[in-house]
Amino acid sequence: MSDAFAIDRLRFVTSNQHKFMEIKEVFRREGIAIEWIKKKYEEIQADNTEYISLDSARKLSSEIKGRFFLEDTGLYIDSLKGFPGPYSSYVAGTIGNEGILRLIEGLDRSCHFLTVITYFDGGSYLQFSGILKGHISIEIRGNGGFGYDPVFIPEGHKLTLAEMDIGMKSSISHRSIATQKFISHLRAGR
Amino acid sequence: MSDAFAIDRLRFVTSNQHKFMEIKEVFRREGIAIEWIKKKYEEIQADNTEYISLDSARKLSSEIKGRFFLEDTGLYIDSLKGFPGPYSSYVAGTIGNEGILRLIEGLDRSCHFLTVITYFDGGSYLQFSGILKGHISIEIRGNGGFGYDPVFIPEGHKLTLAEMDIGMKSSISHRSIATQKFISHLRAGR
Repeated sequence: MSDAFAIDRLRFVTSNQHKFMEIKEVFRREGIAIEWIKKKYEEIQADNTEYISLDSARKLSSEIKGRFFLEDTGLYIDSLKGFPGPYSSYVAGTIGNEGILRLIEGLDRSCHFLTVITYFDGGSYLQFSGILKGHISIEIRGNGGFGYDPVFIPEGHKLTLAEMDIGMKSSISHRSIATQKFISHLRAGR
Repeated sequence: MSDAFAIDRLRFVTSNQHKFMEIKEVFRREGIAIEWIKKKYEEIQADNTEYISLDSARKLSSEIKGRFFLEDTGLYIDSLKGFPGPYSSYVAGTIGNEGILRLIEGLDRSCHFLTVITYFDGGSYLQFSGILKGHISIEIRGNGGFGYDPVFIPEGHKLTLAEMDIGMKSSISHRSIATQKFISHLRAGR
């Protein structure tokens, strides 16, 4: 089954090695290999992740030949009006998890991760999303994962995402959910 | 002197009425009238305000005929690695000034405002910048201005920008400094 995929390999455009490793793992379990195009690309400022991702894919389609996909993920904290949302990467690199803990003190800690995958199949654009609900932890915990993983506790769990190994994170994560939908689409279309 | 300007009026593209009022006031003092193109436009995500502004101006030049200018302003807090910087508008609309006060607690409060004006003269792009140094106040104070004005105390002052009237703010502000440079350029080029 995986041979057909191998002929025209799927390429994932990202500058983030963590994202590549996590998504590669989900594909690997399904017997599908993906290639990494390590590349930073421009994104527009917008409140809507689907829109940002689609815009990026359209721009990339003029320079990348053939099919490819990309991925955008944001953390949305309810009591902070969705902050940091589409700017999660910038915020992680400035105020970081310590800043998130300061902001959330005394407020409701509910939040969710949203991943949007945009796939360009050579002709059209398709999007697949995954949501993981949870809450912000009281303190920074764990060394796994990246970004907000050390302060995010998924619903029904006690560990932060950074305290889980990659296999466990992959079985529940927003990124994994979006990737599974994507894989189902690929299988259905063959 | 102002007649020459009146023939081909300068147009300022912004969706923000406060920005228009402040910049109009600086021009008015110089006897120059400007027009408001009330419009929201797309911006890319980048750490560099000059780059974001130039990119926006290039895109707008295909839909706006003749000369125009636009303005980007960010608040840069030293101890937060420049946060909120280019995403000042988004951050103001989510965690707001209350969030800034939480983040800065116990840290060094030094910061600055940076305004970048990008002017398209019909053929080329020119940029003018203005910086105002200051520090974050202990509490939110004042009803004037907008955005971060109620938590920003300019160097050498005791009032926040929001406690000053528009005339006083205009005499010292980052936005005003950039606009004055712009006006000097316009005068020199005639």
